[in-house]
Amino acid sequence: MSVPDLNLSADPVELTAALVDMRSVSHDEALIADAIEAALRAQTRGFEISRFGNRVLARTTRGLPTRVVLAGHLDTVPIADNLPSWRTNSDDEGDMLHGCGTVDMKSGLAVFLHLIATLDQPAHDLTLICYDCEEIAAKFNGLGFIEREKPEWLVGDVAILGEPTGGLIEAGCQGTMRVRLSAKGIRAHSARSWMGENAIHRLGEALTRLHAYVPRTVDIDGCEYREGLSAVAVSGGVAGNVIPDAAYLDVNFRYAPDRSEEQAFAHVREVFASDLADGTLTAQITDSAPGALPGLTHPAAAALVDAADGKFRAKYGWTDVARFSALGIPAVNLGPGDPSLAHRADERVPVAQIYAVTELLRTYLSA
Amino acid sequence: MSVPDLNLSADPVELTAALVDMRSVSHDEALIADAIEAALRAQTRGFEISRFGNRVLARTTRGLPTRVVLAGHLDTVPIADNLPSWRTNSDDEGDMLHGCGTVDMKSGLAVFLHLIATLDQPAHDLTLICYDCEEIAAKFNGLGFIEREKPEWLVGDVAILGEPTGGLIEAGCQGTMRVRLSAKGIRAHSARSWMGENAIHRLGEALTRLHAYVPRTVDIDGCEYREGLSAVAVSGGVAGNVIPDAAYLDVNFRYAPDRSEEQAFAHVREVFASDLADGTLTAQITDSAPGALPGLTHPAAAALVDAADGKFRAKYGWTDVARFSALGIPAVNLGPGDPSLAHRADERVPVAQIYAVTELLRTYLSA
Repeated sequence: MSVPDLNLSADPVELTAALVDMRSVSHDEALIADAIEAALRAQTRGFEISRFGNRVLARTTRGLPTRVVLAGHLDTVPIADNLPSWRTNSDDEGDMLHGCGTVDMKSGLAVFLHLIATLDQPAHDLTLICYDCEEIAAKFNGLGFIEREKPEWLVGDVAILGEPTGGLIEAGCQGTMRVRLSAKGIRAHSARSWMGENAIHRLGEALTRLHAYVPRTVDIDGCEYREGLSAVAVSGGVAGNVIPDAAYLDVNFRYAPDRSEEQAFAHVREVFASDLADGTLTAQITDSAPGALPGLTHPAAAALVDAADGKFRAKYGWTDVARFSALGIPAVNLGPGDPSLAHRADERVPVAQIYAVTELLRTYLSA
Repeated sequence: MSVPDLNLSADPVELTAALVDMRSVSHDEALIADAIEAALRAQTRGFEISRFGNRVLARTTRGLPTRVVLAGHLDTVPIADNLPSWRTNSDDEGDMLHGCGTVDMKSGLAVFLHLIATLDQPAHDLTLICYDCEEIAAKFNGLGFIEREKPEWLVGDVAILGEPTGGLIEAGCQGTMRVRLSAKGIRAHSARSWMGENAIHRLGEALTRLHAYVPRTVDIDGCEYREGLSAVAVSGGVAGNVIPDAAYLDVNFRYAPDRSEEQAFAHVREVFASDLADGTLTAQITDSAPGALPGLTHPAAAALVDAADGKFRAKYGWTDVARFSALGIPAVNLGPGDPSLAHRADERVPVAQIYAVTELLRTYLSA
């Protein structure tokens, strides 16, 4: 298949449509990476272009006082009969671009590529990173490979991920931890229930505590974070006539980034302290990703907030922002599109948001 | 395959071994039914012999004042590499017969067949019913087919089922009812848990009530029944990052036979009254089988208790006894073997119990 041409400088909406029409479901990003690499080499000046698998780097080295990293993933979730892209214009929604990836996140990627090709006098040195396999299990994540094998690509003073935020700056992200609470019992025939110990019954106190749990809301750098502790799975049972000897409850703790993973686990243990102390339950972490502090007090980040007229909010979901945060680089999400439309068959982005984010970032990145 | 010969009158232990060695896993009872029918026709006097599928009937019609029904199933659970049968004799356990069906319930069947062939002067008219498919789903149960299509076979004043009881009379049986308690909620991303309503959390109160539940113990006709209300399954969860919109809890109520099914359900609803009243949970019966009153005050049953020197106890598990009870016929379980060894690879019966049950029943059935 020949590599399609991309026109980076013309129109970010047309560029979004061209990227969307280049199918790139996770693990199948070679074509789009080829097209972007070719366009960057042909249509930008002063950028060093590198390639590492299906990850593409473009960066300037002008010796400017700050470096801004723009990062976006190339892949999409599986196509839901929603390609090629199409445009609609209705009184309700205005001018919309529809199709898989319009929101998550080829519109953000198009904004970055358009700016790289058209900025005359950048105020910062720039690094653009396009990477693969963000939509699937963390072990495949292209940014993870870069972090481990090309850490020099990630140097910078502030990072902007082009994930959909409806055009607002979303700062930091909450941590997420899953903990399995396990109950043991003694199996018996249910006709002689007193011969056994019912493991399911032992979950009652924990569920009652979850039901009554009042999550914390905390303000960090002007971002309000609202935590949550929720059961996401419960399971137990052997047969309809058996007292079950095992049951478990999986809880998901979404926590503000002022807690470390250790502190988050300590809090979960505190919530279930009485059951854990007397051995009714045991607790084990099954999954964990730390949060990311918003870091908006850093000068390079503060300038971005200024460019957005001070409009920003906390990010609740976990994103690759946390990878930069772990490296000590303040990072935000900023991209066109309503995140709640991502991964849906009716995924669509307001054309006006693509232009708005382009202008916001042009202001910030220009001298 | 030719039909093996069975010697009904010689020795009930040898007869047990011969029946055990005739494999008869559920749905595969034709051979054993053929062998029993042939032996009954050749080796008994004064009995009418009938056949209906793989169910065999033998009965007298002497005009005696009472009729005793002896009933036993022909089938076994799948063989667990434990056939043909074998004998051991150890200091610990004494003389034992091992193999699939030795306990459940070919020893009981052998006792019935031996008595039918050897009783000289029965005190009661006798009905022997051998039936198929007791060990599998209720819809295949041979006694159920007889009840629906040959109800005249089940006429009698007392029924004895040869299920394993360790040689004791076990009277009546408890009812069993399964109720599904369902909770509904509103699905949301767990990073924004306040947008949803967690269905799993709604199970907490019900589990706490189960944990604190104090079951009733009741005496009926001198039998002590101990009830139980137990969770037997719990389930809920969509994904590790989703607030679940549905969860359910299956409870099993084992209740004494002085409660009807309606009363049993009313009691379950009473236990969870507050959750049901405010709509936190809904309750639905998923399975129900009524209990059977012991009926030991009936003269024919009282005579059996006398023959057993007054030794009897309540039956906790549900058995085909309840079918007779529903027809107004007092019924008990009485057979050799420890019921807790049934369905196990190491299934084995003390030879002495086979003789003991034979003598107990010979006393009761003889004039």
